[in-house]
Amino acid sequence: MNDEYDTTLQYVEIDYDREKRTGYPEVIFAEGKRKEFILPIFEKIAEKSNVTIATRIDENIAYEIIKIFPKAVYSSIAKVLTLHKKEIVKIGRVAVVSAGTSDIDVAEEASIILEAFGSNVDRLYDLGVAGIHRLLSKQDILNKANAIIAVAGMEGALPSVIAGLVAVPVIAVPTAVGYGVNFNGLTTLLAMLNSCSNGVSVVNIGNGFGAAIQADMINKLAVK
Amino acid sequence: MNDEYDTTLQYVEIDYDREKRTGYPEVIFAEGKRKEFILPIFEKIAEKSNVTIATRIDENIAYEIIKIFPKAVYSSIAKVLTLHKKEIVKIGRVAVVSAGTSDIDVAEEASIILEAFGSNVDRLYDLGVAGIHRLLSKQDILNKANAIIAVAGMEGALPSVIAGLVAVPVIAVPTAVGYGVNFNGLTTLLAMLNSCSNGVSVVNIGNGFGAAIQADMINKLAVK
Amino acid sequence: MNDEYDTTLQYVEIDYDREKRTGYPEVIFAEGKRKEFILPIFEKIAEKSNVTIATRIDENIAYEIIKIFPKAVYSSIAKVLTLHKKEIVKIGRVAVVSAGTSDIDVAEEASIILEAFGSNVDRLYDLGVAGIHRLLSKQDILNKANAIIAVAGMEGALPSVIAGLVAVPVIAVPTAVGYGVNFNGLTTLLAMLNSCSNGVSVVNIGNGFGAAIQADMINKLAVK
Amino acid sequence: MNDEYDTTLQYVEIDYDREKRTGYPEVIFAEGKRKEFILPIFEKIAEKSNVTIATRIDENIAYEIIKIFPKAVYSSIAKVLTLHKKEIVKIGRVAVVSAGTSDIDVAEEASIILEAFGSNVDRLYDLGVAGIHRLLSKQDILNKANAIIAVAGMEGALPSVIAGLVAVPVIAVPTAVGYGVNFNGLTTLLAMLNSCSNGVSVVNIGNGFGAAIQADMINKLAVK
Amino acid sequence: MNDEYDTTLQYVEIDYDREKRTGYPEVIFAEGKRKEFILPIFEKIAEKSNVTIATRIDENIAYEIIKIFPKAVYSSIAKVLTLHKKEIVKIGRVAVVSAGTSDIDVAEEASIILEAFGSNVDRLYDLGVAGIHRLLSKQDILNKANAIIAVAGMEGALPSVIAGLVAVPVIAVPTAVGYGVNFNGLTTLLAMLNSCSNGVSVVNIGNGFGAAIQADMINKLAVK
Amino acid sequence: MNDEYDTTLQYVEIDYDREKRTGYPEVIFAEGKRKEFILPIFEKIAEKSNVTIATRIDENIAYEIIKIFPKAVYSSIAKVLTLHKKEIVKIGRVAVVSAGTSDIDVAEEASIILEAFGSNVDRLYDLGVAGIHRLLSKQDILNKANAIIAVAGMEGALPSVIAGLVAVPVIAVPTAVGYGVNFNGLTTLLAMLNSCSNGVSVVNIGNGFGAAIQADMINKLAVK
Amino acid sequence: MNDEYDTTLQYVEIDYDREKRTGYPEVIFAEGKRKEFILPIFEKIAEKSNVTIATRIDENIAYEIIKIFPKAVYSSIAKVLTLHKKEIVKIGRVAVVSAGTSDIDVAEEASIILEAFGSNVDRLYDLGVAGIHRLLSKQDILNKANAIIAVAGMEGALPSVIAGLVAVPVIAVPTAVGYGVNFNGLTTLLAMLNSCSNGVSVVNIGNGFGAAIQADMINKLAVK
Amino acid sequence: MNDEYDTTLQYVEIDYDREKRTGYPEVIFAEGKRKEFILPIFEKIAEKSNVTIATRIDENIAYEIIKIFPKAVYSSIAKVLTLHKKEIVKIGRVAVVSAGTSDIDVAEEASIILEAFGSNVDRLYDLGVAGIHRLLSKQDILNKANAIIAVAGMEGALPSVIAGLVAVPVIAVPTAVGYGVNFNGLTTLLAMLNSCSNGVSVVNIGNGFGAAIQADMINKLAVK
Repeated sequence: MNDEYDTTLQYVEIDYDREKRTGYPEVIFAEGKRKEFILPIFEKIAEKSNVTIATRIDENIAYEIIKIFPKAVYSSIAKVLTLHKKEIVKIGRVAVVSAGTSDIDVAEEASIILEAFGSNVDRLYDLGVAGIHRLLSKQDILNKANAIIAVAGMEGALPSVIAGLVAVPVIAVPTAVGYGVNFNGLTTLLAMLNSCSNGVSVVNIGNGFGAAIQADMINKLAVK
Repeated sequence: MNDEYDTTLQYVEIDYDREKRTGYPEVIFAEGKRKEFILPIFEKIAEKSNVTIATRIDENIAYEIIKIFPKAVYSSIAKVLTLHKKEIVKIGRVAVVSAGTSDIDVAEEASIILEAFGSNVDRLYDLGVAGIHRLLSKQDILNKANAIIAVAGMEGALPSVIAGLVAVPVIAVPTAVGYGVNFNGLTTLLAMLNSCSNGVSVVNIGNGFGAAIQADMINKLAVK
Repeated sequence: MNDEYDTTLQYVEIDYDREKRTGYPEVIFAEGKRKEFILPIFEKIAEKSNVTIATRIDENIAYEIIKIFPKAVYSSIAKVLTLHKKEIVKIGRVAVVSAGTSDIDVAEEASIILEAFGSNVDRLYDLGVAGIHRLLSKQDILNKANAIIAVAGMEGALPSVIAGLVAVPVIAVPTAVGYGVNFNGLTTLLAMLNSCSNGVSVVNIGNGFGAAIQADMINKLAVK
Repeated sequence: MNDEYDTTLQYVEIDYDREKRTGYPEVIFAEGKRKEFILPIFEKIAEKSNVTIATRIDENIAYEIIKIFPKAVYSSIAKVLTLHKKEIVKIGRVAVVSAGTSDIDVAEEASIILEAFGSNVDRLYDLGVAGIHRLLSKQDILNKANAIIAVAGMEGALPSVIAGLVAVPVIAVPTAVGYGVNFNGLTTLLAMLNSCSNGVSVVNIGNGFGAAIQADMINKLAVK
Repeated sequence: MNDEYDTTLQYVEIDYDREKRTGYPEVIFAEGKRKEFILPIFEKIAEKSNVTIATRIDENIAYEIIKIFPKAVYSSIAKVLTLHKKEIVKIGRVAVVSAGTSDIDVAEEASIILEAFGSNVDRLYDLGVAGIHRLLSKQDILNKANAIIAVAGMEGALPSVIAGLVAVPVIAVPTAVGYGVNFNGLTTLLAMLNSCSNGVSVVNIGNGFGAAIQADMINKLAVK
Repeated sequence: MNDEYDTTLQYVEIDYDREKRTGYPEVIFAEGKRKEFILPIFEKIAEKSNVTIATRIDENIAYEIIKIFPKAVYSSIAKVLTLHKKEIVKIGRVAVVSAGTSDIDVAEEASIILEAFGSNVDRLYDLGVAGIHRLLSKQDILNKANAIIAVAGMEGALPSVIAGLVAVPVIAVPTAVGYGVNFNGLTTLLAMLNSCSNGVSVVNIGNGFGAAIQADMINKLAVK
Repeated sequence: MNDEYDTTLQYVEIDYDREKRTGYPEVIFAEGKRKEFILPIFEKIAEKSNVTIATRIDENIAYEIIKIFPKAVYSSIAKVLTLHKKEIVKIGRVAVVSAGTSDIDVAEEASIILEAFGSNVDRLYDLGVAGIHRLLSKQDILNKANAIIAVAGMEGALPSVIAGLVAVPVIAVPTAVGYGVNFNGLTTLLAMLNSCSNGVSVVNIGNGFGAAIQADMINKLAVK
Repeated sequence: MNDEYDTTLQYVEIDYDREKRTGYPEVIFAEGKRKEFILPIFEKIAEKSNVTIATRIDENIAYEIIKIFPKAVYSSIAKVLTLHKKEIVKIGRVAVVSAGTSDIDVAEEASIILEAFGSNVDRLYDLGVAGIHRLLSKQDILNKANAIIAVAGMEGALPSVIAGLVAVPVIAVPTAVGYGVNFNGLTTLLAMLNSCSNGVSVVNIGNGFGAAIQADMINKLAVK
C-alpha cells in the first residue's frame, strides 16, 4: 500500500498561488482520502498559510492530525478540522439559517468555515416552514446580516421565504434530507433553483463549504 | 374524416354506472379531442346525469356546445364547460389557495369543479411565499374550510406553509409555472411530495380537477 | 461523541404549538437518528401530549425507550413506537388496503398511526390486481370506510381499481416493491399520479404516516 | 430538392431477403418521410411481396399512393396503408384490448397489422380499470385468444389485470395518453415493465406494429 | 421477531386458483424474505401443485428447505429452487442466448424455469456481438426454437441481431451488466425497446423468470 | 376574452411592500402574458416605484407600452423593458462575462438589470474556454469587479476558470446553448454546480435577472 | 431589428489563431442564427482561411451566401455549406458507416466535413444490424480505413459490431432516430457508451461534424 | 460453490481470433469476478498472447495470480495486472492529463494500458482548471503527443481547454469525482459531450481502458 501512497503523492501540486489570487488557501476535501495522503498536504499548507482546513474528514484521522497539530480543532458534527497559526479577528455578520435538526451538519460546516476565515456568524437552526412563526420571530437577527445562508432539505422552501424578508443575498444550500422522491437532495436543489423570490443563488447539495466561501467574500466586501 | 369519427365512436362505452358507484358521473377530458367526438358523449351524459362537465375544452368547441345547451356555462380561464339540468345547492366550504397569477387557470379549474358538484369555495389567489404576510393575513378564512386545495408552481412551498397552519387535509396541485429546471412542473410536484408538513397529499401536475373531486368528497363527508 | 449530542440538542425547538394549530403533536421521524437524540425529545413531547409517536425507529432503540415508558408499544413490522398516556377512543372507519405481502410494513405504519390517533381500521392486505377477484370480494368492507388508503408497489394499479369502486377519497401510497425499472418506488408513484380514476391523491414513497394523518383528518371530519 | 431525394434514394438497400429469414417483408416506417421517398420503396416491395405496408403514413401521401395502387387500403385512425396483391386467409385469434378511447389509434395499428398478415382479431376497446366490471364481462372472448395485446396509457394497469385472468402471452403496449408526470407514455411503460402478473412483455411506447408482429408470430405458431 | 413473522403470515392469501386461470402456480419471489416466511408458503404450494419454485432465494435458505424437501434442486448461479412431485415431460424447444459470461445468472434463471415447466432448452451463452461470427455459427440451433430469449447487458444489441435472423418471437432480457452510464441495466433496457428489428418484446431488468414464462407459453402453444 | 382578462386581474395583489423589505420593487416576468395583463400592472408599479421593469417581454407589447411611457427603453436582445422616472446614479462595478455569441441574450438581461438598478457593468462577451487566452487577457478588468456574473452554455466551464482567477463572488448563469445531451441547459447547470473552484453559486437556466439582483446586492454592499 | 444585429456583431471575436493552434479554422454553427449574423462572419473567415464552412445552415441562407461566393457548395441533406479558395488534395481514407436511411443526414455531415478538410471517404450507408450480412459483406472496405465513423439511431448497435471487426478507432455518432423511449437519441448515445467492443469513443447526438474532425485528425496522423 | 464455478466456466468461449481482427487480445474485466473464474482465463490468454491483462482486479486476487506468473506486475492505484511474455518496445507518445488527485486511478489505468500495448506516455496529473496556469505551462509536452487522454471529474472542463490548445485528438474520460448533482460522473460525462472545442470524443465514466485502446491505435497509426 505504501507504493500507492507514494505514487499518488508525487503527482500532487499544491496551488500555493491560490491564496494570492483568490484570498483563500487550498482547503483539503478529505472525503474518501486516507491519512497518509491528507497529513502531508495538511503539513505543507500549514507551512505557508495561516488557516489550514480539511472538510469532510473522518473523526479518527482528524484526531491523529490533532496529535501533531494540537492547536487544530475538530467538529464532529460538521466533520471539519481547522488550524489557525495565529488567531483571526472576526468581522461583519452572516446568518446561517437551517430548516430542521437533520440539516445541522451542513449548517455547521458553513458556520465553522465562516468563522475560520473571519466572519461573525448568527446560527438560526430548526426553523422550518411547517411552523413559519418561528422564522418570522427572528427578523431582527436576519436584518443584521450582510449575507444569509439558508440550509434546507425536503421541499427546500426556506430560502424563498427568507429572501422575501431581507435585502441581502441569500445563498441556498440543499441537503439530502428527505426520502422517496427527494433523491438525496436533488428535489430540494431543483426547488431552490425555482425560487419565486429574487436574490437567491444555489450551491451543490450539502455544499456548506462553498456557500460559506461566497458568504464570507460578500461579508468582507460589505465591511471593508 | 367521417369514417374515423364513426369508427372511434362505435367503441365508446360510457360508464353510466359510475355515478352510482362513486357519486360522480363520467367527466369528459376534452383535451385534443374533436367536436364530433365530444358532443355526442356530452349529450349522452346529459341525458342521464344532472351535472355534465367537459374539462380542458377548447373555447370554440365549448361555444358550439353552448348553442345546443344554452344553459351550459364556459370559463375561458379554467377551460371548463359545465351544464346543470337543475340548480345545485352548495354546502360546506373548501378553500382554493394559489401562489401566483400564473396558477389561476388551474386554481379556477378546481374552484369551478367544486362549485359544479355543490361545494362552496373561498378563492384565495396570488398569495405566494415571497410575501408570506399576505397568506398569514387569511388565517381566518383558512380555518373555516373542510379541505384546502393549494395550487403552486416554481418551488411549490405553499402547501407546506398552509398545512402547518390548519387542521384539515391539504391537497397540493403542482402547476407548470417556472422555467429551466422546473421541468414543466415536475420539480414542483417532487417538492410537494417532500413537504415537511403533515397532512399533504398531491395530485398530478395541473390536475385541478382531481384535487377538486377529492376535496368535494371530503367536504361532503364533513357536512353530511 | 457526547459533544455532538449536546450541541445538536441545544438547537432543537419543539413546536409545542403545532397540536393546537393542526390537531396533531410533533411526531419523531427517527430514521438515522441516535437514541441520545430521540429519547429526550420523546420525553419532552410525552410531557405535554397524550399521544407520543416515533416512526421508522430502530428496534433496539425502541425497546430501550420502552424500559423508561413501559406503556409504550412497538411494532417491529411498521417500526413505529406509540405511547398513550390515557387510552384513546376510536371512531369512524378507514380501510387500509395493500397489494402484496411486501407492502405490509408500509400498510402497518398507516394502520398503527390511524389507530394511535383514534380511527378504527379495516386491514385488507395481499389483494393485488393479478388476482382481481380477491379485491372485488371485499366490496362490502370498502363501502363502510370514510377514507381508503391504498398501498402498492410495482405497477401501482391498486388505487385506480379501488377508486373506481367507491365514493370516498383514496390516498395512494407507493412502496419501493419491485426491481429493475421500479427505481425504488418511483415508477409506482408516477403510475399512481396518472391514475385513470377520480378521487386519488398520492403521498411520497413509503409514506404510510402521511397517508394516515390525512385519512384520519377525513375520518374525523366525517364522524364529527 | 430533387437532388436530396435522388441522393438519399441511391443509398437505400431494401432487405428483400428478410421475408425469407423472418417471415415478414420490410415494412415502411413512414413517419417524417416524404412521398418521393416512400413511393418508390413501396413500389419495389410491392413487386416482390404479397403484402406491402406503410405505417405512420400521412393521410395525403397515403391517398396519393392509393391513386397508383387502387387496391391499397388506408386507415386514418391507425395511419396504416396496406396493400395485398392476393387476399390473405386469416387464421387463429388474437385479442386487442385497450383501456380508453384515446388509445384506439395504437390499438387499431396493432389490429390492422395483425389482419394484414393473416390473424383474426377481436377488438375489445375502452375497457379501462376504473370500471373493472367491463373487462371482466369479456372473459369468454379473452379465453379464445392465442395471444393478447393490451394497449393502455396513464397508469398502465390493464395488462396486469388481463394477465391474471388468462393462460396466453400478454404483450403490453404503452401509449402516450396522460399528462404531467406521464411523460408521453414513459410512466406507463415503466409501470408495465413492473407488472405484478406473469407472462407480460412490453414494447416501445405506441409500438402497436411491433406488438402485432410478435402476436402474429405466436398466433401462427399456435395454429400451425 | 416471532411476532413479526406470525403477523405477516396471517395476511398471506395464496392464490391457489391462479394455476387454473393462467396455467402456472404462484412462484415465490424470495429476494429479501426470511426463511420463516418462505418455508410455510413453499409447503402450502407444494401441497397443491406439482411444481413449486422459489426464485432469487438465498443459498442457505434453499439448503434448509432441501432438508425438508430432499427432491428439491437448487442452482446457485440462477438462485432458483425447484421441486417436482412427479417428473415433468419436456416438449418443444426454446433457445436461451446470452451475450457474456456475466449474463449467465439471468440466462440460467430463464433456462431453469423453462425446464421446470416442461420446455426443452438450448443454452447458447457468451455470444456477444463484439465477435459476431460466434452467433452466426449457431443459426441452425436458432432455427429449431419456437421462441428465443436473448439475455444481454451493456448496449443490448443481441436481440436485434437475433431477431433479424429468425422467424419466431424474441423476448429480450436486459441485465445490469455494465458500469457508468449503464445505470444498472436501464440503458440496456431502453436500447432493447428501441430495437430496429421486428418481433422483439422486452421484460424488466434481470427478469429471466418473466421471459421464461412467456417463452414457455409460446412453446406450448406451438407444440400443442 | 375580456372576461378572462378582468377576472384574472381582479386577483392580482401587487406586493408594494417588497421594495421596502428587499430593496427591489416587483419586476414583471412577462413571458407568455398578454398586453392587457402586463400594461395595468406596469402602470401600477410605475406609480409607486422609480424603476419599473418587465423582463422576457415580447417586442410588440414592449413598443405598445413605450407609446404610453415614452421614456421606457427596450432591448430586443435581452427582451427587457425598463423605465426610470428619474435617472439613477451608477456605482461600483460588476463584470458580466459570457462564453459565446449565443449567450449574449442572457448576458444582456443581466447587464441591463444591473444598470437599471444602479451598478456599473463591464461587458466581456465571447470569451469561451476553447480559446482560453482571450479570457486571460482580461484579468485587469476582472480584478476591478465587486462581483462577476459568468454566463455560459455547453459544458459550462467558464465560471470555474474565472473563479480560479479572482477574489470576489462568481454567480454562474447556465444557458440553453448546446444540443443533444445539453438538455436545454440542464447539463450546463449541473456542471456549474460541480465547479472545482470555490466561491461559485448558480441560478436557474437563463436566469440573468436573478444573477443580476444578487450581483447588484453584493456590489452595493461593497460600495456602501 | 437592425440594432440587435449590430449590437451582437460588435461582441464577436473570431479566433483567427485557432487554425494555427489546432489545424482547423473556426467553423460556423449556423443553427438558429440569422443571415445578417452568418454572412459577415463567413466573409471574415474566408478572407484568412482556405476552407470556410457553415454547418446546420438553412437552405435559403446558404443560397444567399452562394450568390456572393459562387464557388461555395451546399448539401441540402447535410445542411453544410463549404467554400474552398483553392482545391484541396484528399489523402488517406475514412469509412462513414450508417445504420438506416434516416441516419443519412448526419452521416453526410461527417462525410462532407471529412472531404472538405482533405480526407477520402467511403460511404457505407443503410447497413443496420437487423440484416447483419449486409455489413459483413463490406469487410474489405472497412479494412482500408484509418478511422471509421459509425452513425446509428435506435439501439445503436452498429459501432459495437464494427469495432469487433477492425483494428482502427471507431467514432460512434448517435442520431435522434427512434421514438418513445429513444428520447431523441439519448438511449442510442448511452448504449454506444456501453459498447462491449474496445476502441469505441462517442460524440454528442447528431454531431457528425465533431466525429469528422477527430477522424480527419486520425487519418492525417496515419498518412503523414 | 465449486459447481457454480465449473458450470460458468464451461460456457466461456475466449475469442482468440480477436487479436488477429482488432490487434488486441481479450482483456479480462475482473470487477466482481472470483479468482476461480479469473485465473483459468488468464492462463488461457497467456498461452496464446504476448500481453495478458486484467483490469479492475482486486489486490488479493492479483497477488495470487502473481504467485503463478511472477513476471506479472500489479498497480494498486489502477487495479491493473499486466503480464508480458517478452518485453514490448514502446513507440510514439500519448499524453495522459488529469484534473485532480482523485482522478489518478483512472488516469493510471489509461497510462498503464498504453504502456502495456507499447505507447510511450507523458503523465500530466493534477492540472485542474481552477489553476489554469499549471496546464498552460505544459504546452510543450502536449505538443509532442499523437493523442491526448483528458481525465476529469466534477464539471469536466479539462478536455475543452486542452482541445483548444492542440491539433491532435482528445479522448475525454469522465470520472465519478464530485458529489451531489455529479451523479457519479454523469454530469461530467454530459458536460464533456457538450464540449465547445472540436476534436473531443468521450468514453464511459471511468473507462480509462477504453480511452487507452483508442489512443494506442491512434498513436500507432501516427508512428507506423
